[in-house]
Amino acid sequence: MTDEHIAAPSTQYSISIHVTLDNKPGVLGELATAIGSVGGSIFAVDGFVAKGPALEREMVINCRSVAHQAEVVAAVEAIDCVELHDWHDRTFKMHEGGKIEVLPLCPVGDRDDLSMAYTPGVARVCNAIADDESLADVYTVRKNTVAIVSDGTAVLGLGDIGPKAALPVMEGKALLFKEFAGVDGFPIVLDVNNPDELIETVVRMAPTFGGINLEDIAAPAAFYVEDELKRRLDIPVFHDDQHGTAVVALAALENAVEVVGKNLQDLTVVINGIGAAGLAIGKILLNAGVPTVIGTDRRGAIYDGREGLNEAKQWFAENTNSAKRAGSLSEIIAGADVFVGVSAPGVLSIEDVKNMAADPIIFAMANPDPEILPEQVEGIVGVMATGRSDYPNQINNVLAFPGIFRGAFDAHATDITEGMKLAAARAIADSVDPAERNAQYVVPSVFDKTVPIKVAAAVAEAARAEGVARS
Amino acid sequence: MTDEHIAAPSTQYSISIHVTLDNKPGVLGELATAIGSVGGSIFAVDGFVAKGPALEREMVINCRSVAHQAEVVAAVEAIDCVELHDWHDRTFKMHEGGKIEVLPLCPVGDRDDLSMAYTPGVARVCNAIADDESLADVYTVRKNTVAIVSDGTAVLGLGDIGPKAALPVMEGKALLFKEFAGVDGFPIVLDVNNPDELIETVVRMAPTFGGINLEDIAAPAAFYVEDELKRRLDIPVFHDDQHGTAVVALAALENAVEVVGKNLQDLTVVINGIGAAGLAIGKILLNAGVPTVIGTDRRGAIYDGREGLNEAKQWFAENTNSAKRAGSLSEIIAGADVFVGVSAPGVLSIEDVKNMAADPIIFAMANPDPEILPEQVEGIVGVMATGRSDYPNQINNVLAFPGIFRGAFDAHATDITEGMKLAAARAIADSVDPAERNAQYVVPSVFDKTVPIKVAAAVAEAARAEGVARS
Repeated sequence: MTDEHIAAPSTQYSISIHVTLDNKPGVLGELATAIGSVGGSIFAVDGFVAKGPALEREMVINCRSVAHQAEVVAAVEAIDCVELHDWHDRTFKMHEGGKIEVLPLCPVGDRDDLSMAYTPGVARVCNAIADDESLADVYTVRKNTVAIVSDGTAVLGLGDIGPKAALPVMEGKALLFKEFAGVDGFPIVLDVNNPDELIETVVRMAPTFGGINLEDIAAPAAFYVEDELKRRLDIPVFHDDQHGTAVVALAALENAVEVVGKNLQDLTVVINGIGAAGLAIGKILLNAGVPTVIGTDRRGAIYDGREGLNEAKQWFAENTNSAKRAGSLSEIIAGADVFVGVSAPGVLSIEDVKNMAADPIIFAMANPDPEILPEQVEGIVGVMATGRSDYPNQINNVLAFPGIFRGAFDAHATDITEGMKLAAARAIADSVDPAERNAQYVVPSVFDKTVPIKVAAAVAEAARAEGVARS
Repeated sequence: MTDEHIAAPSTQYSISIHVTLDNKPGVLGELATAIGSVGGSIFAVDGFVAKGPALEREMVINCRSVAHQAEVVAAVEAIDCVELHDWHDRTFKMHEGGKIEVLPLCPVGDRDDLSMAYTPGVARVCNAIADDESLADVYTVRKNTVAIVSDGTAVLGLGDIGPKAALPVMEGKALLFKEFAGVDGFPIVLDVNNPDELIETVVRMAPTFGGINLEDIAAPAAFYVEDELKRRLDIPVFHDDQHGTAVVALAALENAVEVVGKNLQDLTVVINGIGAAGLAIGKILLNAGVPTVIGTDRRGAIYDGREGLNEAKQWFAENTNSAKRAGSLSEIIAGADVFVGVSAPGVLSIEDVKNMAADPIIFAMANPDPEILPEQVEGIVGVMATGRSDYPNQINNVLAFPGIFRGAFDAHATDITEGMKLAAARAIADSVDPAERNAQYVVPSVFDKTVPIKVAAAVAEAARAEGVARS
């Protein structure tokens, strides 16, 4: 993401400045005016300390970019009656030293504590597990801990930036696991050369963990890695880039069709962009009963017989578009009920949308810039959703993965099945009160703490129904 | 550790019972008497709730063994005016669900938080690290997180019980890292078939961690694993079973020689039991300036030319006992100043101690039963230390590893050098106030929170002096 993408001042580029102001009327106004004159947006003013003739303040200012931060700082420094002591970039500050810590769950204040938590008492627990391995799921972190694993080959939109540069994302995920579902997540970034090394390494460290969340691994390797790990391990394995997105997209679609008065069982859905997420969305829609799914890419519709298809596209060729329709996205989208984009900015035109069936549903999830902007299709769409937090209906996998692992752990599940994913989607959809459901509100807020609880309950129940639960 | 080793009731076998007592005089006395009559030791009585004619109580009772727990429970059940609702083993209860959790260090309460900690802001931090890898040590958990790695091949005294059964020990270590030094430790137990797989796996996951603490890996593989990882990684690698024990033993010896009025530079030290710890103790004593070290095993002294020596013993043959003395432990110990045992119960006789030089120093560290018991040598030793918490002078590596990693992280060290270990030992020794130092007090308490602080400062300073510090 380059600075150019950022149109408005935002928190991600916010700075905190520490200033002393001459304690006289109008100085704060002068400071605010100077910041405003270069386009900085004052977000908060803290720490009012009156020291005789001077006032000390901390001020948070949203900026547009790193260059803009420097501009704002220069504007502050230029004011005579304001002294700038120091400033920092709040995003980098937040990440300093990492975003998670490992804390004791039991006291070690005296010898008695130590004799139970550590030696000699710990030997009793070790022996019990040595006699019955399944007790590791009761008496160790395996009960509640998921490894957040990445090789750093496809990080956000940044590409193959390597394991160390991927670590902040995995830590962020750990943060969300704990905050939203009480799951202990620990980031594991791996320096490996190929998918087989990745698989082998995860299998070797699996005795530590109760589940594996795969993240930001390039396709098609990611498909193979997930399949193999699911086959070789008896704990839940979940590639969030695929299934998290697919689960939330399905949830949004379930509510969207209700808003426009259609049924999943009658839909024609076009999915544009067949990578990891596109593939998973295709699969979950078929599993949910959508009769007609067509995948499209830069070359148009994917059909059985098209040349040069990769693994994901081959699946589409074999499992969708039974009418073997060919043609460009514009040709294929005509008459369709739903457009799901996991592709690139601007690929869908207003004309395309107008050619769709009545009350078209558009999920334009390319990040940060969607396939078409909500303001471009106002009045002509039935329901519009994006991946962004600054528009209504954000399709954000934070709604899915914490509750899914919570439910899997609660049921002591050996796997995360298709049925568990469908149950998660249904629970997310149901989290939007039917009385409040409308075109602007088909997806619940990521800060609605009841969502992961409902997802967990639904997922655990599905795990039991599907025979993968151990408790 | 079998029940038979436990002579007295102890916390590690303690139970908590939940009872209702008839609310009349003498009932508590009757309960206490019943517990006492079968040898249970009442440790605490909590939760006094008077409910009309009945009292509810939680009672903690130390027992000797699992069989003894059942005996105590039966004795309680046999009393008419006491109703036992339930009871549990407190050690197992403490380990339920694991002993550590992973918690957020930054807030994720609203969209602004999320946009800095996670997307889109996290991409800025990822990009910064992609441009300059060293920033991972500033903006990720690498700054303060150590992997506590084991393959479960030599766990406590339990042997090769496998990775899952080793996990409670590694979690215990994580607990101690945080509690005593603010270091985030995360357990990683590995299912590997040989030392090369272990090394390879740790190298692959090293991008996640700022340091590696090796634990409970069988010798001689452990030596090879540590050497290779130190060579291949640019972060501190420390095999605690070796060096933690060696550092604390040296600290104890530094104070012990002072108490008996001798100097390290004049000592003859016999080390009995040449495994991982014995080897590390031999090395650190030579580095600290002890002129004469002799290793002994079941076959007696180790000397250059003895047949069939393993790797650790070969080091002793080449680097110690330059006089090539041969003979049994009893022969070799005659005239020696110090006995260091990391071997087996009862191998040192009272006669052996009497044949040592004046004011003999005995470190009998076999666990749980030392090479000779303190009560057997009272009055004939200068200083006596063991590995146990129920005698004075416990040589416990909890005194060393938290502060050593704290210091290494504070100095952003690339390695843990011999000089850093010597500095740690000196700091531990110095933690016992010279005015209070005596034969019963040559080792500080593991609960003295100033020790890891002093160790960390000394280790960081040594890292800078030795050129391995990056800050």
